[in-house]
Amino acid sequence: MALDESSLQKFGYMEREPLNAINIDPLQTGGILTEEARQALVQWGDGYSVCDFCPGTLDQIKKPKIKDFVHEALPEFIGADEVRVTNGARESKFAVMHSVANEGDWIVLDNLAHYSSHVAAQRARLNTETVSSTGHPDYWIDPEGYAKAIENVIDESGKPPSMALLTYPDGNYGNLPNAKKVASVCHEYDVPLLLNCAYSIGRMPIDANDIGADFVVGSGHKSMASSGPIGVLGVSEEYSDIVFRKSPTHKKKEVELLGCTARGATLMTMIASFPNVVKRTREWDREVENARWFSEKLENLGMNQVGDKPHNHDLMFFEAPNIYEISQKAKSGRYFLYKELKSRNIHGIKAGLTKFFKLSTFRVGRENLSTVVDAFDEIIKKYE
Amino acid sequence: MALDESSLQKFGYMEREPLNAINIDPLQTGGILTEEARQALVQWGDGYSVCDFCPGTLDQIKKPKIKDFVHEALPEFIGADEVRVTNGARESKFAVMHSVANEGDWIVLDNLAHYSSHVAAQRARLNTETVSSTGHPDYWIDPEGYAKAIENVIDESGKPPSMALLTYPDGNYGNLPNAKKVASVCHEYDVPLLLNCAYSIGRMPIDANDIGADFVVGSGHKSMASSGPIGVLGVSEEYSDIVFRKSPTHKKKEVELLGCTARGATLMTMIASFPNVVKRTREWDREVENARWFSEKLENLGMNQVGDKPHNHDLMFFEAPNIYEISQKAKSGRYFLYKELKSRNIHGIKAGLTKFFKLSTFRVGRENLSTVVDAFDEIIKKYE
Repeated sequence: MALDESSLQKFGYMEREPLNAINIDPLQTGGILTEEARQALVQWGDGYSVCDFCPGTLDQIKKPKIKDFVHEALPEFIGADEVRVTNGARESKFAVMHSVANEGDWIVLDNLAHYSSHVAAQRARLNTETVSSTGHPDYWIDPEGYAKAIENVIDESGKPPSMALLTYPDGNYGNLPNAKKVASVCHEYDVPLLLNCAYSIGRMPIDANDIGADFVVGSGHKSMASSGPIGVLGVSEEYSDIVFRKSPTHKKKEVELLGCTARGATLMTMIASFPNVVKRTREWDREVENARWFSEKLENLGMNQVGDKPHNHDLMFFEAPNIYEISQKAKSGRYFLYKELKSRNIHGIKAGLTKFFKLSTFRVGRENLSTVVDAFDEIIKKYE
Repeated sequence: MALDESSLQKFGYMEREPLNAINIDPLQTGGILTEEARQALVQWGDGYSVCDFCPGTLDQIKKPKIKDFVHEALPEFIGADEVRVTNGARESKFAVMHSVANEGDWIVLDNLAHYSSHVAAQRARLNTETVSSTGHPDYWIDPEGYAKAIENVIDESGKPPSMALLTYPDGNYGNLPNAKKVASVCHEYDVPLLLNCAYSIGRMPIDANDIGADFVVGSGHKSMASSGPIGVLGVSEEYSDIVFRKSPTHKKKEVELLGCTARGATLMTMIASFPNVVKRTREWDREVENARWFSEKLENLGMNQVGDKPHNHDLMFFEAPNIYEISQKAKSGRYFLYKELKSRNIHGIKAGLTKFFKLSTFRVGRENLSTVVDAFDEIIKKYE
């Protein structure tokens, strides 16, 4: 591509089509910015703006109030001894794996784990043993499965895995396993546990110390009303010197964070949204109520919600045999559902899916959720 | 910190004090957003907004036009066979080191390298051999120094280093070494070269293939008018399958990028600014002229610019014995310069520095640069 006037015109400013739609995309419902965060973006958008008064490392910046946020507010919010901001939940997971495990070591993770947990382990050149769920329709993770997986690793490698990981909730079914029990099983073998809270920190109350998790990761753009990429990483005192070890040559810089991570407006959006985010986690019961209400309505329309039931999270997976059947004869085929929803200004179910799909009801509100339910009702009737 | 109403009030939206100052901070002059990027922030600020129509991996997204940007525009712009966006230049460097070197291997880098190059090597658990500069006042890197350093590594470890790194320009003196010659020296030993262009890509024309660099990294927030954290990574065809290797279990995901990197508004600001950024690199001669003009003016006021002279880059390092002398008796001591400049709405020389400091003239313009020169003149006269 020659970079002439006409090819450059392809780039520049672009509009975002689904910006004002009713959004039920699980990836997006928890990342919609607050008004404060939108203002922060404009104020702090310039590259390296947060470094105006940098004392040498991101988490120590006093103006704006990053130090208080990282060292006082976040530890309280997620119940972890030491916290840092990172470039995202996956980057947090890799930082932990790369710190506590050596190449060739084994780790254990649930088989509902996000792909990025596997890819982080592959990047750290680790072997993985997975804990099976009970499969369809509950996809339940038995905490005792961690004992079995740890035993398997001991049999295979002669020593326990370097760590275990539990996805809380998983990103497909929105299941919340018994994390406390998993932590206790892992600790019987002296195996530290990482809790992947990408879909929970910022949506629901999380207290890593209370659960007994040694590491906890969250996602700003997924669940903390932040502009990405940004995440959080909480570590217990026992492991903080390992994960947050300093450079031998550059004493202020933490090696695993490459010195600094979310060095820009992303962090200022997280701080801007924080008061709201804290408060919304205190309204979690209402979100669970809305999720259950929505699940019941869709089941009444002939769809089937799998995973935890009654459900405990806004992220839900539906099987939709009736929608699939329509797609077999609809003019737009498997894209008909996407198009029908789009024409009703509803965004978030992946284009082309009909037989099953996931969605999120987080912060959508009962009124908009009713609109979505009515849309499904209309669409089903239209093709009857 | 209890997260009650009063402590939460510490966070939320905050204003940025130096937002409208004349900015000569080397970290910041190249990262000031274009108007198009500011609009993009508002439009694409929500978490995971770029994933509205994701086909499974960031660089393949067609709407917005990320695929064309990453696979057509960026390779042309930086002269590299394959390009990806990353979370920043340091993250790009780590990705390369972690891909092409094994733990315990050696790499060679210039001793003007940014701290994050060293920290990235430490994170990848590599040994480093540095190439000395000529020291004060030129800080010149002799390309033949790379041959010597490579020989040292061979003597020490029995094999050549896994790679070499050259900082182009360095972040202290803004020196542009003979990168072509360094590449050719490294290639004589079959050692691939990484060029750290955090202060050049987006400011001046860069063509990695023409230089002969096997890897090239750039920084969006430092030099491409982007909201951070975001960077670019260019790799020659020879190494692209190594650096951008795919996951064995998740076929679309690149392991070293953990699947996706700048998955948010950061990328949309880079795309929004791109037409402007391409054009400004074509006006680089004027920036060099301005830098030289400014350097001469400050030297006339009793300061001394070290590094390349005449200078070839907007980033410059000054020794200021006269300013230091004033600080010895000024009421605010070593903070006097910062305060005097601040009162004249000039931001970017680190608070507390007087004996020497660095600054950047990039895109400040002749008029504002005159204001800075006049400010120094006034300040010196005031304390005479």
